[in-house]
Amino acid sequence: MHAGIIGGTGHEGRGVAARLAAAGVPVLVGSRQLERAQQTVEALGGVGLEAATNDRIASDCDVIFLAVPFDGVAALLDAYRERFQPGALVIDLIVPLTFEGGVPGIAEVAEGSATEFVRARLPPEVRLAAAFKTIPASALAKLETPLDCDEFVCGDSPEVCAAVIGLLGHIPSLRLLDAGGLRSARLIERMTALAIVLNKRYKVRGARFKVAGL
Amino acid sequence: MHAGIIGGTGHEGRGVAARLAAAGVPVLVGSRQLERAQQTVEALGGVGLEAATNDRIASDCDVIFLAVPFDGVAALLDAYRERFQPGALVIDLIVPLTFEGGVPGIAEVAEGSATEFVRARLPPEVRLAAAFKTIPASALAKLETPLDCDEFVCGDSPEVCAAVIGLLGHIPSLRLLDAGGLRSARLIERMTALAIVLNKRYKVRGARFKVAGL
Repeated sequence: MHAGIIGGTGHEGRGVAARLAAAGVPVLVGSRQLERAQQTVEALGGVGLEAATNDRIASDCDVIFLAVPFDGVAALLDAYRERFQPGALVIDLIVPLTFEGGVPGIAEVAEGSATEFVRARLPPEVRLAAAFKTIPASALAKLETPLDCDEFVCGDSPEVCAAVIGLLGHIPSLRLLDAGGLRSARLIERMTALAIVLNKRYKVRGARFKVAGL
Repeated sequence: MHAGIIGGTGHEGRGVAARLAAAGVPVLVGSRQLERAQQTVEALGGVGLEAATNDRIASDCDVIFLAVPFDGVAALLDAYRERFQPGALVIDLIVPLTFEGGVPGIAEVAEGSATEFVRARLPPEVRLAAAFKTIPASALAKLETPLDCDEFVCGDSPEVCAAVIGLLGHIPSLRLLDAGGLRSARLIERMTALAIVLNKRYKVRGARFKVAGL
């Protein structure tokens, strides 16, 4: 397996990079400019991480985390859809947040969710899942603090979910839950907005979810 | 305070009735027919509970839980909007669930959520909050099992949220979280669909949420 993060220098991307590397999963940290990726790898301490361009990750990796802002993803997938390896697995981290009058919400997306928007723009032979939508970047970044939460994975098929859960299951104190097909992203993305509402209300930065009764 | 549940004989309504009564909060259990309400009160053991018609609850109570199916709420509010006492507090429990091809989801509601749909049909002098949207009826019903979860309250104002949190805070092992204004119901209602996805996937009935990092 060869994993890379497109948009690995953003807050969420670098948090995922740090957690994966700490769990012994080597990962390419991607940016449009190699120099910026190198800066992030250095800032994260380097172990298990390698800097790369987004272009290289799209071409070379068989597991590709998509950690770019929602506004940029259509153009990015237009540019990369022919580059992805057939059978590559894309893991979408994107949440189309809005802040109307300061109130966090989710943009109306014709496809129903950012994940389904991505699905509509990927070749059919590329597999897709969603993960890390609800864990705040600030919680990912604090490696010394156990995540102690659950994360919701949805995907093209139960097999795709199982593959993602197997990969991300290396991260300690994180329970991965199979949340079904891609349509569940409509539900999961909104939890991120709720976490931000709670962060603001309770003056914290790391609100995240656990499921009781499972 | 005089609390009643419109639709108190349904699964969610009777679960809330049971938990409130067990916590020492007396409550009227409502149904269209008094006889059905009486049957529910008897089935729940009776202590702290009294049967009533929905009509009486609408007129007499100053705290009114709305626990009817989404399909019926427009007609119900048409009938009751003039009955509610000015300053009454309505607590909406409704989730507009759909099952497209067996996949749980949330109906598109023009107002954005069931709670906002209710708001649009209540007189302005009646206050509105949402609660108990994400806790499954089966978990509420098992009085011997601690809820051990969080519940999200949103409302017209921080004062309304605080009042609801004060009232429901009598229920042990339940943490009430202030999730902001009514628009948050758009986020919260979808968590119910996610809980049902998880219940199906993991073959349980009581999936519910906790928030870490608060």
